[in-house]
Formats: sequence, C-alpha cells, structure tokens
Amino acid sequence: MIPAPFLLYLGSSADALGIKTSRGIAAFRRDDCVGEFRHDDCPQTLGLPRMSMAEAAAAGARTLVLGIAGAGGRLPADLIEDAAAALEAGMNVAAGLHERLRDQPRLAELASARGLQLFDVRDPPAHLSVGKGYPRAGRRLLTVGTDCSVGKMYATLALTRGLRERGVAADFRATGQTGILVAGAGVPVDAVVADFISGAIEALAPAREDGGWDLIEGQGSLFHPSFAGVSLGLLHGAQPEALVLCHEPGRPHMRGIPGRALPDLAECLARNLEAARLTSAEVRGVGICLNTSGIERDDALRLCAATEDRLGLPCTDPIALGVESIIDRLLCEASTPSTISSY
Amino acid sequence: MIPAPFLLYLGSSADALGIKTSRGIAAFRRDDCVGEFRHDDCPQTLGLPRMSMAEAAAAGARTLVLGIAGAGGRLPADLIEDAAAALEAGMNVAAGLHERLRDQPRLAELASARGLQLFDVRDPPAHLSVGKGYPRAGRRLLTVGTDCSVGKMYATLALTRGLRERGVAADFRATGQTGILVAGAGVPVDAVVADFISGAIEALAPAREDGGWDLIEGQGSLFHPSFAGVSLGLLHGAQPEALVLCHEPGRPHMRGIPGRALPDLAECLARNLEAARLTSAEVRGVGICLNTSGIERDDALRLCAATEDRLGLPCTDPIALGVESIIDRLLCEASTPSTISSY
Repeated sequence: MIPAPFLLYLGSSADALGIKTSRGIAAFRRDDCVGEFRHDDCPQTLGLPRMSMAEAAAAGARTLVLGIAGAGGRLPADLIEDAAAALEAGMNVAAGLHERLRDQPRLAELASARGLQLFDVRDPPAHLSVGKGYPRAGRRLLTVGTDCSVGKMYATLALTRGLRERGVAADFRATGQTGILVAGAGVPVDAVVADFISGAIEALAPAREDGGWDLIEGQGSLFHPSFAGVSLGLLHGAQPEALVLCHEPGRPHMRGIPGRALPDLAECLARNLEAARLTSAEVRGVGICLNTSGIERDDALRLCAATEDRLGLPCTDPIALGVESIIDRLLCEASTPSTISSY
Repeated sequence: MIPAPFLLYLGSSADALGIKTSRGIAAFRRDDCVGEFRHDDCPQTLGLPRMSMAEAAAAGARTLVLGIAGAGGRLPADLIEDAAAALEAGMNVAAGLHERLRDQPRLAELASARGLQLFDVRDPPAHLSVGKGYPRAGRRLLTVGTDCSVGKMYATLALTRGLRERGVAADFRATGQTGILVAGAGVPVDAVVADFISGAIEALAPAREDGGWDLIEGQGSLFHPSFAGVSLGLLHGAQPEALVLCHEPGRPHMRGIPGRALPDLAECLARNLEAARLTSAEVRGVGICLNTSGIERDDALRLCAATEDRLGLPCTDPIALGVESIIDRLLCEASTPSTISSY
C-alpha cells in the first residue's frame, strides 16, 4: 500500500483533464491529502493548501502523488525534477505513467539512498492469462464512455457507494491509475500487453457467488481511435450484465484529437451493447451518467431529463444529482439472480 | 537480421495450428530451411528432412526457430531444454513467444558463453505513440478474420505478391511473429502495451505518397473473446481502404474456446466495416479468402462460388486458387488515387 497522507501534484498543468488523477484522489480520498504542489504558472487548484515539497513533508505528507496524465504516459524532465525534490524532502513518490519512476536512475538512486519508495501503479500484474469469455457467475456492471475522461470512474465509485447504501454487496474494480490509487488495488488495463486485455479483466472480476456486484471502471471509448482496442477487450473481459454510458456534454472534440466529434449517445450505447453480447448475451443498458460540472444546475437537470426521454434510460449526474434512479433501474430489473446464459 | 538457414522446430506438438510459425516459414522461406526438429511423439511434419540439433548444425543451420505458438505465448520447460541443446550445438535461437528467451538465465548464459544470439521477435518497438486516426496518405489493405489462425498472413502475402506481379508497388506489413520472421521486419501487435495498439500500426504503415499499397496482416478476430481488442486497435490503426475477410471452413469452434461457434461471414465483414469507418470512412470489402487446405479441390471451388454469390465479393483460396479475382476487384474499383476523406 502507498503510505498516506499525500501531497497531490499539479505541476505546471493548464489542462483540466491532465490533472484528473490528482483531482480524483482529492475527491475520493480528501482526508488523506495534506496539500497540493503547483508551479507559479499553473492556473489550476484542487482547493487544497498550496505547499512546497519541504512544507508538505513538514506537514506530514508521506507520498507525493504525480497525479497527472498525458496521452502516452510519458515522464518528462520537469516531472523527474520535481519527483527528485520530493525524495530529497523525504517523501515517497507514486505515479501511474507508462514510463516508470524506477527506470529513472536518478530517482532510483535517491530513493535507495534515503530509504524511500517509488510506486509505479501502472505496472500490470505478472502472469496474466488470455481471456476466454466462458460464462461465469456473478453480477457485473461496467461503465462505458463516449470518450476518455468523461467521468467513468466517478460514476462507478458513486454507483458502488449507492448500492452499498441499499445494503447490497458491491465492490469497485479499478482499471486506471486514478482508480487504483483511490481503491488501493486494481489492474491498469491500458498498460497490460495487448493479448491479455480481456484476460486481465476476467482476473480483476472473477466468478462471484455471493450475489453481490462488481462495478468495473471502464476506460476509453469504442469511438476513440487511440484506445478503442482497450475498451473492447475490457468490455469482453468484464462480461457485464449491465452497462452505464458516461458522457461529458459540451466537449468540443474527442480527447486529444482536435476535429473529431464525439459519437451520438444512442449510437454509442448501441455499439457497446452489440459488442458486449459476444460474452454476455443478455447485457442491457441501465443508465446514463453525465458529467455536468461545467453546466448550471437547472440546465443540467433539463439535459438529464431530455436525455432520459430520448434514450429511455435513467440519466443523472452521479456527483451533483446522485445515482438513485440508476440503482432503482438496476435492482428493479435484476431482482432475481441472473442466470448464466450460454452463447 | 536473424541468420539463415534455419532449423524449424515442431517439438512434440500434435496441434496443426500450434506449429503455424514453423509452417509459415517453411511455406514462404523454404530455401532458407535446412530441416525440421521433432520429437518421436510428434505426429506432424513440414516435409523437410528430420534432423537432430547436431545434424542440423553440421548441415549449416545457423538458427533454430522455435516456431510454435500456444495461447498465452508461454515458454515451457521442454522448449527451454531444446533451445539449450540448439545453443550447445552451435546455433542461435529465435522465438516469438510472450515469454522471452533472454529472460531464461540458462539460455542467456549459454548464448553468452558461446557467442550466439537469442532473438525474441515478439519484442515490441520502443517509444511507441498512441494512435490518432488522423487521415493519412497511402493505400492500405487489411486482412481480417472470423478467427485466429485462419490464413490472414498467407492471404496478405499472396495479395502482396499478386499486386507486384501486376507491376503495382506493394509491401507486406507484418504484425505477428510468423510474418515478422518471414518478412524480417514488422510489429508484434499483440505484444505491445494495450494503449499503443493503434499507434503501433500507424507507425508500421505510415503515410505513403508513391501510390503503392501497404498490405497489413490482420490478427485475431473482432469475434474472439480473447483477442478482439487487438483486432479492433489494429483495424483503427491500419485505416484501411480495403478489407479482405479470411476464414477456414469447417473449423469446429473459435480457436482455443471449445463450444464457441465462429461468426457468420457476412456479419463478421459488416462488423469489421462498421468499426473500420471510425478512421476510414470509405472502407470497402474487396474479397473473401478461404483456407480450403482441408477440403477437396472441387468442393473448395464450389464453396468459393457459393460464398461469392452470397456475399457479392470475389472469394478464393489464396494459396490453392490464387488471388487474381480479388486483385481485379481491388484495382478496378480503386483505379484512381483515393482521396483522403475527412471524418
């Protein structure tokens, strides 16, 4: 486990989506965060006290979390510099990038010399097997998206909490760096060797006999030309009986691809259901989650209502408006243990 | 480059598909093969002289190619044993498994001590970028399949040869271990980190301005629950203007998944075309390739004719019957340089 409390890194990021890991930890593990580190040119804040490395260490922070993420997961020189400063101040460093902290000789030497640790949470598990798609017991819900970074993790965490509040056994299954840092466990599915995408998810959410739910965090989008392969393998491995489609209204283009429009919600859900049927013949959509953080509340309510009418499914903002309507739909239609359907 | 000539390994394999790498090298680089190595319990042959390691080395073989492949790409103890024997006999060893030769201390030490080399052709290239799906110049054909191991590499190689015989510039782009061993270059797409599947293919077949074709070897199947993520990322990265669907008639079930039926050809092609449109709006199917090696010639001809009628596309066995009909369709409908369509 990564020692808390944390100092959350924003660096020089001007990109709201680029700090989504730090933001997610601030949202779901706020009690474990003592402050945020940002350079003078950083226009963003998480509302935590701004601290230098030394101030954070003095305030008790045990780990700097490099919670920023660009496409490609590179570890640029300025991050290495700041990570070294954290080690020199006496903190461990955690990151979830494709390029590993431990592969940087300077960081490895500093950590070793000071008895500190480097955590690369995007390391996939060893000894994965290929997925098989055999019917397996258990109730599984997967969040899917029109795009990357539209709120799938938030929705999945909110749905997990909502089920538990109803007294239903439910576990969040993390598939991305932020989710893994929030949950303390999971599989960084975008970092596994391509042959093992679905197998990694079968291992993450294996057969379950207690009647409880696994709520699996989706990644990417079937409509994202960078990452659709990950999304499809995840979908097949998850073998979900329920899908929740996540979307951020008003996004100008697919994440990282200027000029590429987001898919229509109905088409996106239909394509996900079609693909999911390969391993889960009876899969159904149970709701739509909109990230309306950029919209006034009245507009958000109107948009949810209109989306609900158009798609025939409960639609909500899981953070601002709650997930009760989706939980109702999920439990109402799925009140008897699901039968394992053959393919 | 891996030094030829080769000794091809069959080991104890009783599975015709399990030796597909050795078989592919025997088919497409036969002049570079001095013999085959098989244990007494191996019921298979490639029709090459059976040799011990010592006999092969004496006959001039410079590299043992461990051309066998099980799902998961493991390197079991008996293969390690035989690889060590090859090194002791003075040959290099090449393999395309997920588990690397160089990670076996015994093999690494033997190779080092004797000045021999270990070739792990499934190593993905370093420094991949995520795919973007931006329209790019060039003419690209991709083979897709109803299943793994249905003849996509054979079809792609035959189509490449067919285009060249018509005087059209054409290059085979290998994406699997066999193709890479045949071509001497390529990207083992199932071994790249999942985030980079489409990016790896964009790098393998970059923009091309000479009017020639890149013929990209497909992998897996959108309908295979183990590997569909690889197939989808490959499809998006390839950005193909033409698809050829490959199939092996009579296969009892999806490779490695007893009980799972193969998809219908028309549905399989339609789903591939639908998915491909994300990065190639004008993509079209140009032919069907059947592997009829298990069928009498007259039956094969009848089956091709019936498939052609049903799907409205040229259908052939690329090895037994040639690819002229598909080349005709490809060049006839694509006789003007393709315009880059915006999405």
